[in-house]
Amino acid sequence: MTEPYLLTASEAGTLMKKGDLTVENYAKSLLSRIQERDAQVKAWAYLDPPFVLEQARNLDQIPAEKRGPLHGIAIGVKDVILTKDMPTKLNSPIYSSSGPSTIDAAPIITLRAAGALILGKTTTTEFAAVTTGPSTTNPHDSTRTPGGSSSGSSAAVAGFQVPIALGTQTGGSTIRPGSFNGIFAWKPTWGAVSREGLAQYSVTCDTVGFYARTVGDLEMLGGVLRVEDDERIPERGFGMEGKRIAFCRTHVWGKAGRGTKNAWEGAKKILASRGAEVEEIELPSDFERISEWHANVLAGEGRTSFLGSMCTLLPEAVFELLTQQDYLLAKEKMHPMLHDHVNNTSKLTRKAQLEAYDGCARLRPVWDELASRYDAVLTPSVVDEAPVGTESTGDASFCSIWTILQVPCLNIPGFQGENGMPIGLTLVGPRYTDEHVLWAGKAIGDVFKEEGGWKSKVV
Amino acid sequence: MTEPYLLTASEAGTLMKKGDLTVENYAKSLLSRIQERDAQVKAWAYLDPPFVLEQARNLDQIPAEKRGPLHGIAIGVKDVILTKDMPTKLNSPIYSSSGPSTIDAAPIITLRAAGALILGKTTTTEFAAVTTGPSTTNPHDSTRTPGGSSSGSSAAVAGFQVPIALGTQTGGSTIRPGSFNGIFAWKPTWGAVSREGLAQYSVTCDTVGFYARTVGDLEMLGGVLRVEDDERIPERGFGMEGKRIAFCRTHVWGKAGRGTKNAWEGAKKILASRGAEVEEIELPSDFERISEWHANVLAGEGRTSFLGSMCTLLPEAVFELLTQQDYLLAKEKMHPMLHDHVNNTSKLTRKAQLEAYDGCARLRPVWDELASRYDAVLTPSVVDEAPVGTESTGDASFCSIWTILQVPCLNIPGFQGENGMPIGLTLVGPRYTDEHVLWAGKAIGDVFKEEGGWKSKVV
Repeated sequence: MTEPYLLTASEAGTLMKKGDLTVENYAKSLLSRIQERDAQVKAWAYLDPPFVLEQARNLDQIPAEKRGPLHGIAIGVKDVILTKDMPTKLNSPIYSSSGPSTIDAAPIITLRAAGALILGKTTTTEFAAVTTGPSTTNPHDSTRTPGGSSSGSSAAVAGFQVPIALGTQTGGSTIRPGSFNGIFAWKPTWGAVSREGLAQYSVTCDTVGFYARTVGDLEMLGGVLRVEDDERIPERGFGMEGKRIAFCRTHVWGKAGRGTKNAWEGAKKILASRGAEVEEIELPSDFERISEWHANVLAGEGRTSFLGSMCTLLPEAVFELLTQQDYLLAKEKMHPMLHDHVNNTSKLTRKAQLEAYDGCARLRPVWDELASRYDAVLTPSVVDEAPVGTESTGDASFCSIWTILQVPCLNIPGFQGENGMPIGLTLVGPRYTDEHVLWAGKAIGDVFKEEGGWKSKVV
Repeated sequence: MTEPYLLTASEAGTLMKKGDLTVENYAKSLLSRIQERDAQVKAWAYLDPPFVLEQARNLDQIPAEKRGPLHGIAIGVKDVILTKDMPTKLNSPIYSSSGPSTIDAAPIITLRAAGALILGKTTTTEFAAVTTGPSTTNPHDSTRTPGGSSSGSSAAVAGFQVPIALGTQTGGSTIRPGSFNGIFAWKPTWGAVSREGLAQYSVTCDTVGFYARTVGDLEMLGGVLRVEDDERIPERGFGMEGKRIAFCRTHVWGKAGRGTKNAWEGAKKILASRGAEVEEIELPSDFERISEWHANVLAGEGRTSFLGSMCTLLPEAVFELLTQQDYLLAKEKMHPMLHDHVNNTSKLTRKAQLEAYDGCARLRPVWDELASRYDAVLTPSVVDEAPVGTESTGDASFCSIWTILQVPCLNIPGFQGENGMPIGLTLVGPRYTDEHVLWAGKAIGDVFKEEGGWKSKVV
């Protein structure tokens, strides 16, 4: 039998539901994989193997007919999402001694109720808000970043340490690591999954995200979390023949490196060779302002979101002018960017913040209409393959546009860069067409794989 | 000396900062007032007097030069806002055994850091989402509702049990009780105060709200929470002479009862007599759809928000067709409306939900532009005075428009209905003009008071 840690969630779930694999043995296999690999990858912020095994044995006690749709499936959770049985520390010195919360974040409640085994908490950048990486490394090359801020979740799934993990995205924190690690990454439509219990940076942008090594596993999560389109997805697969597939470079295309450019041309060729009608499309010119608007919304909302945390650090001084010493103390304990947000160092006006809200809101239905003319729309996920070093988790420019448009995004692996590292492309759709995006993405991912795809060096 | 419980927050704060009143003695005065009144009003969901006094004594230990801007000021907190030292139960059987959270909600962190004394948790309707009231009564007439869902916070402030309290608003949950109880109620611009740690119903609408018996107390809170307009507010007061004050009936005016109609005419006459240029304005006709859009946004977002809670109730059954028995069990433990949201009983389509988002987003800047032509805009707060009975907390029609437009709202008491119960009007402004709204509202409130005003029967 295949080592259980190599299975997809759906495969493992089927075995566990039938009783051909106990949850305990499944957990043991994952834990031994983690033991073997994680000294180098460092994906976990919190992991308690005896506790995991205890939970696994409890799940094994559930009679077959009462087992949930995610029975025994192990899930890693980014350490900015609250869990009732594990601490949540947000990679921040402010919360370094925090314990478990009294209640799980809303999506965790639902996943647990469906039978999932919450395995542990995965590493993140501070508050999932900065690009200074944790020490986590890319499982395909330990000299490189796995991306961020969902660093641990992406690295753990790519490294076969867990089949599914939760991330979050405010700029490109789910999609970019998906591309850097060569796995599927899904950022649902804003609002399609509850954000209750997720650390807050930007209410307009923050979205829970999901990693898996197959789209089927993501579809299973979408079902449990009731992410439903208006239109039912056909039972049959998304065949390429005659499908209209748009390629949308966006106004940040100038940033694309050779790896992304090659993936772009490769994907067009492959899909056309399968009978799709491939077409490059341009966004209307006012979409060019979205990057600036995204930055302004984050600055405006960060101003509010991090005030509480800063107050924890400087209970008296925040209300008065900070002395130089106070300021340095706070900067040591809190990333300067967060500090700058609270103090509105960028001098962002409310007028500019509102212009950003209204500009993006105006373009959302424009995008929906444009995208709905195609069966699928592809766009770059990243600038290029994962950069060397773990200090910076990379550039979110290609992702943040779609995050603030609040549309569903799916990173599809399929290509590689000059150094043999993975590069994906992102499938985007109109808002609330998540099921469609997963349906099309599964087929497109299969085609990329059949045509060479991304060759994982792991395992 | 005046009984401390009768003081406004600003008055009590000045005395405590100077050391002329200890926080302990202030707390004792409030607790004895509560002891005297609350058997009838029933404003508190949680109150632990010995713990309050212990916190008060701790605050008294802070040396004068280190006391925060809210030193010793007592604040009641609606029981849907997380507190680290008191349970949060959301008036739901699901959370009836919940304890304190590991961390305070973000605004509570900031208020505590400024020296506030968190007094206790106040009653709410279930999840602040339904209109079935708790047993809390109106302090001016115990046969009537104080409104909701911020029932306890509004009743406690009106009844001199606490000078300041926090509510929330998704429809009219802050403003309506403000009117029913004859106090100032401020719902800030959406996003101006962090929502982290507030129970989630509708991310687009949920906003923390504040009650006080004077606008000065609300301004003090706004300062601590850094709710700042682009334009600095003049030092001088908002004189009526020559000010352009608009009266906006809205498309739900047909619901207005005699009390609100009399307040409307009275306010126009009073302000004109003081030299203001009073003008009735009409919203463009597409604003008529906002009430329907508000309902659709709540249905769409409630579908996501309450899934987790429903999973707590029905760990296995939610993922399959519910049996009749399961359904009845859940309905008993969870308000049927919440259940219907999760199950999308209204058959709301994603298309209709998106149309609601985009429609409201389109009208926000239209409103901002329209409102910015005036020095102040008044609109009804409620249908009429507080109805008899505590079963229903009343009609939110006049408030929900402004909630989903995400604009600042201030209920200004000043009138009374046929039964001598208070009726207020709401001052609304363009988004992120909260300081302006409070500045104008203070002056308009003073004028209403000088011209007769609302005569509180309490004390």
